[in-house]
Amino acid sequence: MQPDSSYSFADSTSNMYIRFDWRKSLRSPPSYRIGTTTFRFHFHFVFIIICLATLILLFYYVKPGSRSSYSDNLFEKFHPPVHQSYNYTYPLSAPIIGSGMRTYRIGIIADLDKESRIVGQNAWKSYYKKGYISYKESTEAIAVSFDADPVLELRNGYSLNGRGMELSELVTFNGKLLTFDDRTGLVFELNNEKVTVLWLLMDGDGKTAKGFKSEWATVKDETLYVGSMGKEWTTSSGEFGSFDPMYVKAVSMSGEVHHVNWISNYKKIREAVGIQWPGYMIHESGMWSAVHRKWFFLPRRCSKNTYNETLDEMMGCNLLISAEENFNKVKVVKLGNYKPTLGFSSFKFVPGTDDSVIVALQTEELNGKTSTFITAFTITGKLLLAPERIETDLKYEGLEFI
Amino acid sequence: MQPDSSYSFADSTSNMYIRFDWRKSLRSPPSYRIGTTTFRFHFHFVFIIICLATLILLFYYVKPGSRSSYSDNLFEKFHPPVHQSYNYTYPLSAPIIGSGMRTYRIGIIADLDKESRIVGQNAWKSYYKKGYISYKESTEAIAVSFDADPVLELRNGYSLNGRGMELSELVTFNGKLLTFDDRTGLVFELNNEKVTVLWLLMDGDGKTAKGFKSEWATVKDETLYVGSMGKEWTTSSGEFGSFDPMYVKAVSMSGEVHHVNWISNYKKIREAVGIQWPGYMIHESGMWSAVHRKWFFLPRRCSKNTYNETLDEMMGCNLLISAEENFNKVKVVKLGNYKPTLGFSSFKFVPGTDDSVIVALQTEELNGKTSTFITAFTITGKLLLAPERIETDLKYEGLEFI
Repeated sequence: MQPDSSYSFADSTSNMYIRFDWRKSLRSPPSYRIGTTTFRFHFHFVFIIICLATLILLFYYVKPGSRSSYSDNLFEKFHPPVHQSYNYTYPLSAPIIGSGMRTYRIGIIADLDKESRIVGQNAWKSYYKKGYISYKESTEAIAVSFDADPVLELRNGYSLNGRGMELSELVTFNGKLLTFDDRTGLVFELNNEKVTVLWLLMDGDGKTAKGFKSEWATVKDETLYVGSMGKEWTTSSGEFGSFDPMYVKAVSMSGEVHHVNWISNYKKIREAVGIQWPGYMIHESGMWSAVHRKWFFLPRRCSKNTYNETLDEMMGCNLLISAEENFNKVKVVKLGNYKPTLGFSSFKFVPGTDDSVIVALQTEELNGKTSTFITAFTITGKLLLAPERIETDLKYEGLEFI
Repeated sequence: MQPDSSYSFADSTSNMYIRFDWRKSLRSPPSYRIGTTTFRFHFHFVFIIICLATLILLFYYVKPGSRSSYSDNLFEKFHPPVHQSYNYTYPLSAPIIGSGMRTYRIGIIADLDKESRIVGQNAWKSYYKKGYISYKESTEAIAVSFDADPVLELRNGYSLNGRGMELSELVTFNGKLLTFDDRTGLVFELNNEKVTVLWLLMDGDGKTAKGFKSEWATVKDETLYVGSMGKEWTTSSGEFGSFDPMYVKAVSMSGEVHHVNWISNYKKIREAVGIQWPGYMIHESGMWSAVHRKWFFLPRRCSKNTYNETLDEMMGCNLLISAEENFNKVKVVKLGNYKPTLGFSSFKFVPGTDDSVIVALQTEELNGKTSTFITAFTITGKLLLAPERIETDLKYEGLEFI
């Protein structure tokens, strides 16, 4: 046992020595030579400086949080840290993946126009249909199918001037599936096959009794952007009325609405294809791509002539327009030879394609009859799916991966 | 000149000495004895520590402001400094002051219930009437008169389930005159004798397709609080439906809406007068007093018995209830012997009285016939103006100094 005991003794001596040395160092600190200058560490002093600095830093860190002690002051609730809660889930349901092919769940939403009114009731309706899109990356093959289930009827009692539930877009924002009434300006959440009301968007600069004619919606930097036709409001013969449909609504997660004047942005888009007032472009779709840091538009109508309600039906547009964030550079890609009666009403990038493949809805309004088509192409204009008629009677104006 | 020259020389020597001493002190600093410990100031080291601390502090100060460089990020717009822009003007027009008497402009707004629908049109209406209130402080005399002009009709096309423009309150918020539809949940701005839509308030916790039944509204700490009946939703025979009317909406200047559960607050108010479920209290008015830092309520109905649609008409309440900010202390003041058919529908403090004088609207709904009265009293319960009938056919549910 002797070696062990002696080891133990030596160990404890060494501990004592270390302790002694540490204490001593506080009183007569070691010197360090850096260049020609000698630094002597006065630990007491340095310790005080560090403590002070820590206290100051802690004070400035803790201060903003201390507002929460005003339990009745809603500041904290109104101004949550902006990056705290945005839900980036997209699409909301996971795709089915197998043998190089991904199959996504999709939903499309109808704008029934005046037919949305439920006769004999103070209620309005829209239709919601679900389906699948399969995409095989290796062959760029794309296939679409819709559920055989009867179409789902969505009802709501809100109306403006006797019209309501004329839904025009479907978009995922902050983990919620939203849809937009282009009559009332209401923004609904679509959940469990029912709509609940989230917000109300008013037209133009917001100081009005008229709802915003929401036509397209997209998400940029955790903010929802909702756009309208992007053309001057005119009479049915084309006389100027107002710039109201050239405003865009920027909506925060918490529902703050900002009315953003996009007149110059919209003008830059149409000027890129040589259109000047009284020529016009009508938008029903638009997307911000975080991958490309660009805005993308598939205009519904393009015309170098004054708006005319009847001629407008033939002014379908076959262009994919992309614009830099500030709209200073605008690029135009010519798409396949679509019929001039077809107009884009909604599009989305196929998830997992780095925003390179687009699936889009087209609608036709001809001699009072409407129908809906689905098509797909790459952002370079290569056709992947020729327009497939998916509805012979109705206009579906919103498409989303759900 | 000799003394001057010698003086000048001495001075310059002394300067040199000081400079020399300062330089030397950087290399071999002076010692200070505090208690039994010796501090030696090593200026190089201290200088570095201070520089670092300053840099760190500067970094944390400058950091929040640097967000503004993301010109396209709406963070700054969504989160303006909260105290920057609130407009405290109240009332919106200046009173006429003369011989110890102040005369204020007032407005009252009607809730026409189902009569608000304009027959044959998809539009709904309300009436707005203006008048004067004169108050003489020395005698506590109060007089009310209304303009002889025909009543103003306000129109709007928004409705929920076929009803709209059933306006229930008038309140000044952030320099705007607001009014509230108790059917759709819409908040309107009333300006230039027209309404424009500001926001939409949804019922209960907000996840619903039903509008909030706004009955009262007040401003507290630059936030608009909008309340409903403050009683459980029940069937016409008193069976429990939901707690939705016991939520309060807290709306920021920028329109962010928070759905605040006030069940316990409302219960504390009614318990202060000995009312327990299934007994009830119905609120149509409520105000936050920044002077007293208290909430004030004039309940429309008070009943110790289960709700019954017919008996309810006789359950008018003659109580002024005030509650501390957190509702932990509730005070009840008995008012004059008002008829049991009269129920308070709106009240305001007379400006310039330090929230000590109240002018209130009372309405009567009896056997299908409605009328409106105006009355005034002090917060200690002294009657200043016995109920004066101002309308024999309509219910006016909102009153404001304009």
